[in-house]
Amino acid sequence: MASSQLLTRLIRALEVQPGVGPRSATRIAYYLLDHRRKEALNLASCLKEAMEQIRECPLCRDYSDQGAVCPICANVKRQDSRQLCIVESPVQVQTIESTGDYRGLYFILHGHLSPIDGIGPEELGFDLIEKRLKSGELEEVILATNPTVEGEATASYIAAMARKAGVRVTRIASGVPVGGDLDTIDAHTLSASLINRKPY
Amino acid sequence: MASSQLLTRLIRALEVQPGVGPRSATRIAYYLLDHRRKEALNLASCLKEAMEQIRECPLCRDYSDQGAVCPICANVKRQDSRQLCIVESPVQVQTIESTGDYRGLYFILHGHLSPIDGIGPEELGFDLIEKRLKSGELEEVILATNPTVEGEATASYIAAMARKAGVRVTRIASGVPVGGDLDTIDAHTLSASLINRKPY
Repeated sequence: MASSQLLTRLIRALEVQPGVGPRSATRIAYYLLDHRRKEALNLASCLKEAMEQIRECPLCRDYSDQGAVCPICANVKRQDSRQLCIVESPVQVQTIESTGDYRGLYFILHGHLSPIDGIGPEELGFDLIEKRLKSGELEEVILATNPTVEGEATASYIAAMARKAGVRVTRIASGVPVGGDLDTIDAHTLSASLINRKPY
Repeated sequence: MASSQLLTRLIRALEVQPGVGPRSATRIAYYLLDHRRKEALNLASCLKEAMEQIRECPLCRDYSDQGAVCPICANVKRQDSRQLCIVESPVQVQTIESTGDYRGLYFILHGHLSPIDGIGPEELGFDLIEKRLKSGELEEVILATNPTVEGEATASYIAAMARKAGVRVTRIASGVPVGGDLDTIDAHTLSASLINRKPY
């Protein structure tokens, strides 16, 4: 226990962060007290504002603090692309945006189908996807869920919905990472890269 | 950049913590938004309170939020011990307390002598130590600064002050860690453990 009850409480509170255990939390607390009081106060107010004000966009379910619809959904050029890229988490939107290779709309599932954890179509917002598929605003649905068992199951569920609505469905390619070494690639990935080979 | 400006600001603010880079900060921010909003709000208020209310005890310079003097300095039994243990940082007070082998008073330097970084006797509170040495309230000063070049220099400076005031000075022992393996101990530590050997 620290010399101050407030300090003990702060150390406990810091442990809510993933990857921060009791030892790191203690180190962080003393470091902030010793050297970074102003920045720590700024962190406190950022945390409070973010947790209170950041909500999900009603269209794509990405995090947004700007009015009703997020900037990407409100962008007319993106609406004109008539493409919807479906991802599992908001971080993946940032990753895809950073490539600069996609200029369409997004939909964030916030997870994947996982009946054991009680995560079904309702929790992932499939009703919102259905509504958009039926509205006729889309030409293509790009399935960018993770290439895992759960991600594939989720993708195949959405693919069936899209086909029923007559919307083209594509899946991001699986294969050898660019710059990767074939020696260290697992057999499943190598097998996918062979099956998906392209004319050269 | 994240989809929300508030989120981008939160990620930047989280990076003030030691050991938290841009990637961990992003992961932490999304994790808190996804699963731990209540706990994150609690962290925000703990941070604010701690940074605003935790001050240094005017006697020992340990962190305290309870009135003028910290609980250890206010403890009459500890005052009666007439021992003062001098450490470099508040965490070390907790470590020594956890051993249960010391029941005296503490003094926290918040660093060590380091002329290059502009840290001299004034920054470390040597005037406060001097005052206590001259007051006649102490019988023993235990030097528990780190066994590094800077820690030893700091210890020797304080030792000279204590001797001048006629107060007994001791230094924590350096040697082989308990449970350690002699094969993996560096030569300096082994040499210290030989020089400080005791009758068996």
